[in-house]
Amino acid sequence: MKIGVIGGGQLGRMLALAGTPLGMSFAFLDPAPDACAAALGEHLRADYNDQAHLRQLADEVDLVTFEFESVPAETVAFLSQFVPVFPSAESLRVARDRLFEKTLFQNLSIPTPAFADIQSQAGLEAAVANIGLPAVLKTRTLGYDGKGQKVLRSGADVEGTFAELGSVPCLLEGFVPFTGEVSLVAVRGRDGETRFYPLVHNTHENGILRLSVASDAHPLQALAEEYAGRVLEHLGYVGVLAFEFFEVDGGLKANEIAPRVHNSGHWTIEGAECSQFENHLRAVAGLPLGSTAKVGESAMVNFIGEVPPVAQVAAVADCHLHHYGKAFKAGRKVGHATLRCSDSDTLKKRIVQVQALV
Amino acid sequence: MKIGVIGGGQLGRMLALAGTPLGMSFAFLDPAPDACAAALGEHLRADYNDQAHLRQLADEVDLVTFEFESVPAETVAFLSQFVPVFPSAESLRVARDRLFEKTLFQNLSIPTPAFADIQSQAGLEAAVANIGLPAVLKTRTLGYDGKGQKVLRSGADVEGTFAELGSVPCLLEGFVPFTGEVSLVAVRGRDGETRFYPLVHNTHENGILRLSVASDAHPLQALAEEYAGRVLEHLGYVGVLAFEFFEVDGGLKANEIAPRVHNSGHWTIEGAECSQFENHLRAVAGLPLGSTAKVGESAMVNFIGEVPPVAQVAAVADCHLHHYGKAFKAGRKVGHATLRCSDSDTLKKRIVQVQALV
Repeated sequence: MKIGVIGGGQLGRMLALAGTPLGMSFAFLDPAPDACAAALGEHLRADYNDQAHLRQLADEVDLVTFEFESVPAETVAFLSQFVPVFPSAESLRVARDRLFEKTLFQNLSIPTPAFADIQSQAGLEAAVANIGLPAVLKTRTLGYDGKGQKVLRSGADVEGTFAELGSVPCLLEGFVPFTGEVSLVAVRGRDGETRFYPLVHNTHENGILRLSVASDAHPLQALAEEYAGRVLEHLGYVGVLAFEFFEVDGGLKANEIAPRVHNSGHWTIEGAECSQFENHLRAVAGLPLGSTAKVGESAMVNFIGEVPPVAQVAAVADCHLHHYGKAFKAGRKVGHATLRCSDSDTLKKRIVQVQALV
Repeated sequence: MKIGVIGGGQLGRMLALAGTPLGMSFAFLDPAPDACAAALGEHLRADYNDQAHLRQLADEVDLVTFEFESVPAETVAFLSQFVPVFPSAESLRVARDRLFEKTLFQNLSIPTPAFADIQSQAGLEAAVANIGLPAVLKTRTLGYDGKGQKVLRSGADVEGTFAELGSVPCLLEGFVPFTGEVSLVAVRGRDGETRFYPLVHNTHENGILRLSVASDAHPLQALAEEYAGRVLEHLGYVGVLAFEFFEVDGGLKANEIAPRVHNSGHWTIEGAECSQFENHLRAVAGLPLGSTAKVGESAMVNFIGEVPPVAQVAAVADCHLHHYGKAFKAGRKVGHATLRCSDSDTLKKRIVQVQALV
């Protein structure tokens, strides 16, 4: 089976590493000459709206999937004429736009921070008066890793901010006094079977994920699965979907969803029976899903900007390096380490050891 | 770091799957147009003695390694002029030839079946008179998966047998009444550090490995490590070396060594902390070696001739498919499944489940 992937970054690369042993081959559509997934499959170097290359991709592969959600809607619609596309155009449409996703949460009775659609500076000021400060203004589309957003703490922060974010449609979100950030990686097969990985506790710095620790029998696991299950069913979703939640007052408020494999699920490569990458491929290919159970105690440390010397990472016990083969650049995700330990005390020590290399 | 691999079959493919996350890239020299490792790196399609392509490979990569031992000695010598080659020419010379390897065992006081170098039919008849029947006649080089050998049970089996095997140098080996076949996968780094995986119990059919089960605290583990350690030290070996032993009277007799990653070590991909593939690459690249400890109870079932439908393999719990992406053909190794279970009773059940698919 040949899989077409829109995007050829590290997520595509890890999909190919997981799918090759299933007998799959891969083609990546990515305009970047140095797309790091290209080492593991065919590289169609073209823009995401290049219909000639999209058609070529559709003709070559059995199905198409995505490694990022900011794919133009026209691209998805065009491909869907010729080849099965998972997740669906509708799933991408919702997940791509913060207004649509928050509205969906609301419609499905999933708690979420207060929000307002912002189309102008005047609209922003009115919404701030209503929701209050602090609040966060985010572009509705194309934001990631803390980009395309600004925290508003005082009236002065509000001035000129709509223009500052590019005068594009935005969402204002009320600040949530959360005690933790957790994510749930879910997968739904073509036959509707769903599975959920253990909740992961995430630590961000400057909007970029630094550390994910897989939890053990988290008290909010069942609630998170209930919420995620509603979205999966509503969308008739196929593939891996990641849910980010804020932990607030012993409950959960939905922050956002990502219609793809997710950085907070990278620990699953060694830390779970079947990784998020393999399960995404199993789902889109119509195969039975694999077990989402943990293998030992597991965490992931992101390498941002650069990967420490390989010999140093390899010297840490219980540590598995994932180097993305990308050029090093400040703020860029260039690799991660998975830690898989027999107990959580050892895991804590290993996290400190790896973080000391960064 | 870029690694050159002589041979582009499934062993090269699994080396690339293990090495890509370490930030390595790969080039494979293999004359086959459909070399299955080619999906994961550059493919130099040329004969193994094609000096122009060998020189190109040497210029492109940081070091060269091998996925099979039957590489012409001249190829190794030629490459060694330009680029580090691991394992060494001397290691390959010994491991490639059954007479040299058995002689080495003898010199290092490692028990081995009685053997004799055979250069003619008359020599064969004299050796049979000395060693007795049953015995096995094997070509000294180029044999694998039961090819290039014949079991001799009676005088009639001896007649014309030297010519039957091609009138090439052979080794006659006395038959060993073994109670089991075990193998030890060992790895030695450039700094001389050695590590050993748990002994594996192997089951062959028609000379082809069918099933490998990793053992738990095998009583012969220390003895096997002692024997293998002698060979590693003597050769100043770098990389993974697999040792096949016969279990005889509660002891071990050395059958053969393979100077490479080995089919009986495929279970380590999921069944050990660090796989034989990653450890081979760590060794040749001068990185610290990874843990050879087991993760749960593990076994490997080979798929010979064809891989069962992927959906059926994926439906077995605790099962990890490794499809080599090769054309199906009777007698050909085209994939395997690793089983990794929490206990040995479950493992036994899973083995039966997977074998039922074959």
